[in-house]
Amino acid sequence: MEKGLIKAIETAESIAIFPHTSADGDAIGSSLALALALKKTGKKVIVYMEESIPDTYKFLPGSELAVFISENDDIMGLNIALDTGDTARLASRAALFFKAPATINIDHHITNTKFAQYNHVDASAASTGELVFLLLKEMNYEIDADMAKCLYTAIVTDTGGFKYGNTTAETHRTAAELLSTGIDVADLSQKLFDNTTFVKLKLTQKAIELLELYENDLLAVTVITQDVLQSTGAKDEDCDGLVNIGRSIEGVEVSVLIKEKSTNEIRVNLRSKTYVDVSEIAAAFGGGGHKRAAGCTIKGRITDVKEQLINTIKDKLKRR
Amino acid sequence: MEKGLIKAIETAESIAIFPHTSADGDAIGSSLALALALKKTGKKVIVYMEESIPDTYKFLPGSELAVFISENDDIMGLNIALDTGDTARLASRAALFFKAPATINIDHHITNTKFAQYNHVDASAASTGELVFLLLKEMNYEIDADMAKCLYTAIVTDTGGFKYGNTTAETHRTAAELLSTGIDVADLSQKLFDNTTFVKLKLTQKAIELLELYENDLLAVTVITQDVLQSTGAKDEDCDGLVNIGRSIEGVEVSVLIKEKSTNEIRVNLRSKTYVDVSEIAAAFGGGGHKRAAGCTIKGRITDVKEQLINTIKDKLKRR
Ligand SMILES: [Mn+2]
Ligand SMILES: [Mn+2]
Repeated sequence: MEKGLIKAIETAESIAIFPHTSADGDAIGSSLALALALKKTGKKVIVYMEESIPDTYKFLPGSELAVFISENDDIMGLNIALDTGDTARLASRAALFFKAPATINIDHHITNTKFAQYNHVDASAASTGELVFLLLKEMNYEIDADMAKCLYTAIVTDTGGFKYGNTTAETHRTAAELLSTGIDVADLSQKLFDNTTFVKLKLTQKAIELLELYENDLLAVTVITQDVLQSTGAKDEDCDGLVNIGRSIEGVEVSVLIKEKSTNEIRVNLRSKTYVDVSEIAAAFGGGGHKRAAGCTIKGRITDVKEQLINTIKDKLKRR
Repeated sequence: MEKGLIKAIETAESIAIFPHTSADGDAIGSSLALALALKKTGKKVIVYMEESIPDTYKFLPGSELAVFISENDDIMGLNIALDTGDTARLASRAALFFKAPATINIDHHITNTKFAQYNHVDASAASTGELVFLLLKEMNYEIDADMAKCLYTAIVTDTGGFKYGNTTAETHRTAAELLSTGIDVADLSQKLFDNTTFVKLKLTQKAIELLELYENDLLAVTVITQDVLQSTGAKDEDCDGLVNIGRSIEGVEVSVLIKEKSTNEIRVNLRSKTYVDVSEIAAAFGGGGHKRAAGCTIKGRITDVKEQLINTIKDKLKRR
């Protein structure tokens, strides 16, 4: 890591850490771990959140260092953005970020715009948590169990529990060192992964009920209308991950989740297993993404959108 | 590892590997990895299965080395039991196992009876796969991507994808080395974990529908009757894991799955989250297990069994 970056941290007496807006496990975990480590050296440290920490992550040590910006905020000696690809992801905190005499940007997004004074961007890392881990090691900070819990959370959430293709040998080596601090993996995993609500479960039940198979069971389609959300009491974000249900079925190649945002606005999530490039399908409707995971928003009525999507996907399924 | 054990492997020209009956991912993965490694050195190697390899694991390299015993079987120079706590788990192959001039037993079950000539039992290992990994390293065998796939499968299945409490720093260090061989983690994870059938999904839907909450939502109870299994077309083993649905609900402490095996025989699975010792509940009905996971089989009608269980659990929930 750049000497200037390290020096900026070492010399700063007050530091604010900025995770990205709609902070996920990696943004929150890496921010809290860094905050705890810096705090331990006697510095004044806060984590500036755009929104509250989601319930799932409230149990993490260091959560008490999370604050929101206010009119009376002091300018800190150093501002550090974590897991933040560009200034848009600083949202309402962008102006404040650049007011500090020194700024740092540590991230693993390949699209990072290097907006700070010191930028450490490593797209080969599965998570920003791994980069913070390396930073702390380089600065000879002892990683205690509290910091390890936060960094482990960062890593497992961004790798889907070591399952995604971004998981590397280095990811596991980092996890090994974090486990050596004595953290309770079973307890953490349960809090992070096996943690649902009765309402989400009822939405899952409904999603399975509504799942339809097409094209010799190669295509799974699930339509979630506003009526379904209302009848189960579920919120929009409770639909996260429902598209994976269809994808998990043996023999299914493409899974589509069609979600009614309003009468005339439909959100579509696409997943594929081995050969269909779903980013092409999403692009055909003005969206984008990756080969195996993509999405788009389509104006129109839900039944029309469903028909259009099935016709487009049908074509791609044939070209094996 | 004992010198005699290593020597027995090195000197044997023909070797049979015995995974335990009802072989799981660890038994199969560690057996196929060892078979592939030994085969590569020019030895005659087979894996004696009690049953066919389950569909989930048929994609693993080395599956072609799996055979069943027959009348005409040659006696091999060395028999190696893997992941097998006692000879009962060799089932119909037990007699054949002891016919070889040399026998080895490599396992991680604390209850292992050390039934072979050479026994390597390490209960601190999360999986037998890790022990086979160490054995191959000690023998200076190069672990190729095919063997790595099998060992990775062994490790992730026995640790629930690095989530269970048996996962150690060593588990992750082993995974790091296996990933270095270039295996496709996303593909493997998908095959091993995100792989269900439409029938299993329909059973899950039904299980959520039938799930009831008691005792201020601290207790989740799911009753699966023979009628439910028949209406969904699901088999008995498709119920595996259903008890975890109730446990995953925020606020639930105990989850019970009550499954009708026949009109008068009820199988009960129990899980708890933080303070109830479910092994005590199972023991009260003649079963057993661990604090957080236990089970029992009860004679009686399903409605009576349900009532008895709820009453027993109610008591334990109060004693926080
Ligand atoms: Mn993030
Ligand atoms: Mn086993």
